[in-house]
Amino acid sequence: MSTETAPLGDAATGRMTISAIAASIGVSVPSVSKVLNGRSDVAPATRLKIERALQEHNYQRNARQTGTSAAPLIELVFHELDSAWSIEIIRGVEQAARRNGLGVVLSDLGGSHTPDQRWMDEVISRRPHGIILVLSMLSAEQRRQLDTRSIPYVVLDTNGETTVGAPAVGSNNWNGGLSATRHLISLGHRRVAVISGPGDVLCSRARVDGYRAAHAEAGLEPMEDAIRWGNFTVDGGYRHGLELLTRANRPTAIFAGSDMQALGVLRAAREQGIDVPRDLSVVGYDDLPLAAWVGPSLTTVNQPLLEMADTAARMLLGIARGTDPNPRSIELATQLVVRESTGPAPA
Amino acid sequence: MSTETAPLGDAATGRMTISAIAASIGVSVPSVSKVLNGRSDVAPATRLKIERALQEHNYQRNARQTGTSAAPLIELVFHELDSAWSIEIIRGVEQAARRNGLGVVLSDLGGSHTPDQRWMDEVISRRPHGIILVLSMLSAEQRRQLDTRSIPYVVLDTNGETTVGAPAVGSNNWNGGLSATRHLISLGHRRVAVISGPGDVLCSRARVDGYRAAHAEAGLEPMEDAIRWGNFTVDGGYRHGLELLTRANRPTAIFAGSDMQALGVLRAAREQGIDVPRDLSVVGYDDLPLAAWVGPSLTTVNQPLLEMADTAARMLLGIARGTDPNPRSIELATQLVVRESTGPAPA
Repeated sequence: MSTETAPLGDAATGRMTISAIAASIGVSVPSVSKVLNGRSDVAPATRLKIERALQEHNYQRNARQTGTSAAPLIELVFHELDSAWSIEIIRGVEQAARRNGLGVVLSDLGGSHTPDQRWMDEVISRRPHGIILVLSMLSAEQRRQLDTRSIPYVVLDTNGETTVGAPAVGSNNWNGGLSATRHLISLGHRRVAVISGPGDVLCSRARVDGYRAAHAEAGLEPMEDAIRWGNFTVDGGYRHGLELLTRANRPTAIFAGSDMQALGVLRAAREQGIDVPRDLSVVGYDDLPLAAWVGPSLTTVNQPLLEMADTAARMLLGIARGTDPNPRSIELATQLVVRESTGPAPA
Repeated sequence: MSTETAPLGDAATGRMTISAIAASIGVSVPSVSKVLNGRSDVAPATRLKIERALQEHNYQRNARQTGTSAAPLIELVFHELDSAWSIEIIRGVEQAARRNGLGVVLSDLGGSHTPDQRWMDEVISRRPHGIILVLSMLSAEQRRQLDTRSIPYVVLDTNGETTVGAPAVGSNNWNGGLSATRHLISLGHRRVAVISGPGDVLCSRARVDGYRAAHAEAGLEPMEDAIRWGNFTVDGGYRHGLELLTRANRPTAIFAGSDMQALGVLRAAREQGIDVPRDLSVVGYDDLPLAAWVGPSLTTVNQPLLEMADTAARMLLGIARGTDPNPRSIELATQLVVRESTGPAPA
């Protein structure tokens, strides 16, 4: 396609110019500009036609031009703002942005994992230096829209396979699951349950695979019906915890998908008169500041959230300056932190 | 001053125009524009001269004009981002902003209660619809700079007297202190200590005054050396808690300045083998989501953080549209929520 249309474009780059694209589909140059700038005052049908033409011709705004005219902003997008987990990430991005004289625009998708078009329009018209997506992702169409505008993005803690190939920063979830479960097995636990995040979220699956690997390594089978998928909230941990702890042959240890979930498990245990760690060991995930303070303090897997956020911001700014990130996907190390909530398996 | 200079100004408003101000101090009109727009490419001495002239002549950018040319952004400024407390406020502002098609730019002053000039320059050049300051304040000079640019601001949970007169949203801290202490006195506690926030923060003082009022109302004197000033963190609560609980004649109840502080007190009690609520009652403040989940769950004073944030955002947008807020200062009601951490005074 691009060779076919090259004669209409910029001889130096082999790319079509805005005016060539406008001419090729019979619309005005200002209309193409408006669509490129996220303005909504273009008829929907025209807009769609222009968007398609931009993509067909692989139009991409000159990144260097964009860099100088971009607003001094980074977009930080959460699928949902909740708990102290989000705060750690916000702080990391905010610190990196401040060092670079950039403001951080925060969006909360209200639980949706993909932004809507209205958000896309707002972002495109703000012309930020780039976008960091937390536990959320862009559709292929949205990624193309950003590519066309030379607005880079980085995914923090990728949550699904649609973002494969996108620059990403995460932490080693499989290793986290492995080390948490190894710790419990080494304490003599043979009935270890796991409450993970949603099953369609990659990090949840990786942790559960680490849990399985620790069992295999020790020549053990996981206990039957031991794997629960839920959400990362306290309530998620409480509900699964209550169910696990009230069944016959209950687990002696529970590996939770987040510190908040672990708090929920602790509450379920208290309600059932089950002492932690005497009767039940609990491992959390994240190592939020409060993990050290709750009672009992949580044995948990440290995710370096501040550092992950900082790394994502630096990667993003590198791409905005025209550097191709190498590697495109970074995984920071997780580390088990042993505190009061785990102990030897009950006899 | 303004009558003296009126002949140079706009006859309709009696105000000086930019060109009149430029002429009055012998600088170019573009220089005045640059300073008004927060551009840094003006010599410091010239800049200072222009800033002074703008203020002397009470120059104010036409609010209606500003409204239409303002970027679709609200600035949200924290003196420090920490804990789940901040998240509740961010969510409230974010929701209100989204309803109005505005983005939220988040800043963290890194512990400082007043923004620096660099931040001011960035904000002025972003030209937001307005600014919400959380537990932070502007200097008189900074307020004048914003007034000149017609950028409105609202203070959320005012922390000092310098913001008197600024539009503000808070909650009834005095009442919160009163109801928490009344609850403890009604349970028979006569040795009630209070750990509040920093002594120079108004909300801390109001809560302590409520604590005193509850004692006076019951014809009681607060226990000696009962009032501690600290910071709102878990660590603050832990340190004061440990000190209070290891002294001779220790309190039977502690009213903490935040749920995080209360967590710290719970930890200090656990370490000392003091059972909550049997040997010690603890009341928190804020009613963060986790207050219901920790063990024991916290009796606490509910501050409607989401609603406070939403109210501040709506007030701000009203001012940006030219409405004078009435009242200028709103205090939302606080409410005691009784859970597991309080009980009858030990015999």
